[in-house]
Amino acid sequence: MTGNPYDDPAFFAGYATLPRSVHGLDGAPEWPSLRALLPPLAGLDVLDLGCGHGWFSRHAAGEGARRVLGLDSSRLMLARAREANAHPAIAYELADLEALQLAPASFDVAWSSLAFHYVERLGEMLGRVHGALRPGGALVFSVEHPVYSAPARPGWTKDAQGRLSWPVDGYMREGPREVDWLGARVAKRHRLASTTINAVLRAGFALSHVEEWRPSDAQIAARPSLAVELERPMFLLLAARRAS
Amino acid sequence: MTGNPYDDPAFFAGYATLPRSVHGLDGAPEWPSLRALLPPLAGLDVLDLGCGHGWFSRHAAGEGARRVLGLDSSRLMLARAREANAHPAIAYELADLEALQLAPASFDVAWSSLAFHYVERLGEMLGRVHGALRPGGALVFSVEHPVYSAPARPGWTKDAQGRLSWPVDGYMREGPREVDWLGARVAKRHRLASTTINAVLRAGFALSHVEEWRPSDAQIAARPSLAVELERPMFLLLAARRAS
Repeated sequence: MTGNPYDDPAFFAGYATLPRSVHGLDGAPEWPSLRALLPPLAGLDVLDLGCGHGWFSRHAAGEGARRVLGLDSSRLMLARAREANAHPAIAYELADLEALQLAPASFDVAWSSLAFHYVERLGEMLGRVHGALRPGGALVFSVEHPVYSAPARPGWTKDAQGRLSWPVDGYMREGPREVDWLGARVAKRHRLASTTINAVLRAGFALSHVEEWRPSDAQIAARPSLAVELERPMFLLLAARRAS
Repeated sequence: MTGNPYDDPAFFAGYATLPRSVHGLDGAPEWPSLRALLPPLAGLDVLDLGCGHGWFSRHAAGEGARRVLGLDSSRLMLARAREANAHPAIAYELADLEALQLAPASFDVAWSSLAFHYVERLGEMLGRVHGALRPGGALVFSVEHPVYSAPARPGWTKDAQGRLSWPVDGYMREGPREVDWLGARVAKRHRLASTTINAVLRAGFALSHVEEWRPSDAQIAARPSLAVELERPMFLLLAARRAS
């Protein structure tokens, strides 16, 4: 995650207008699904990998987490987190997810929302996260789904009857992808769902749950534009435990 | 798997001309990947779920499996298996995968190739397979990948530059799909990858490996028509163990 667009003031300003930036976790439609994968956080030590504006760190502190360490590689993000989501139990620190330095067996929960698809050496990073968790500790994270990230020119197509579909190509070609987002050219990694899952297993975790997120019927009723998310998966959610 | 097209003589005759029917396992390009997920079979009791022509059962017997039980719901398939792939260690029996009756803790390996996407109550079936395996026993199977099974009208599209893509729609709408194949209307189930994986976990298995199959470079060099399989996943392969 070098050349971080989140440290570009123009991109950062655009990012700050997203519902999930303005409204925090409640602005992220996948939050209820992710929350259901978390243990109760009271009394636990929590790691927030790619903490962004700090909304999850603040949630964890509000739930009674003993200590929360929010890590991000963007100085602008950290400044915003310290301003908007400060709490005595939280420390926000600058860190490169590609080169994590964490004390062994010092956390009960490792969390990450939509950050790991920026990480190139995922297996190595997961090994460090595994080592930083206590035995029985939980890993819960989301990434972009590979159906969403695969195409060279991602976008919807509409047939003569007005039906939408999401053309997939290059699914098996893992590696860098660049997309235009919020006026910037953003670099991310396309990785098979199987590659992500196997990296979690190889790092020593036992998989507990995988989810290809879809909006609930209630969410679609409240916000009909979400219905398109039934056509193709956008997010992959995963929960695992450090077995020993 | 009622109204089984494999019991329709015309469909069966078409199926018998497929490379994987004529050449057995070596005619299935995903076989090397699946084989790598299997333990050495010598001395083991092996269950072959949806055994078809019996090629895998025969392979297992050839590897020295102590006992192989090949189950299929098609009488035509079983007749062909008994004719083409008989072996003293193998019993081929008629069985509905929706209503398996298996002695508890009586197998070391449960295998299935491209059959589970015909099964409606997958979780229930996996529970029975789990019970039929001895502790430590292995489950290895393949199914159609949901990117392949999702679309209402599956097929490739080509853009003005001749680039192929696979339009995906209805990914989140799990349930029946009907496709025209070998001159028949074949009913199967579209199921998310996450649903399949979670069903394996809920049945009591520990996941060891997931694979979204792709042809190797050597396979593509030998058979260039396989290159299109790099654009979208066709098969999902999975290996798990009965933990206790």
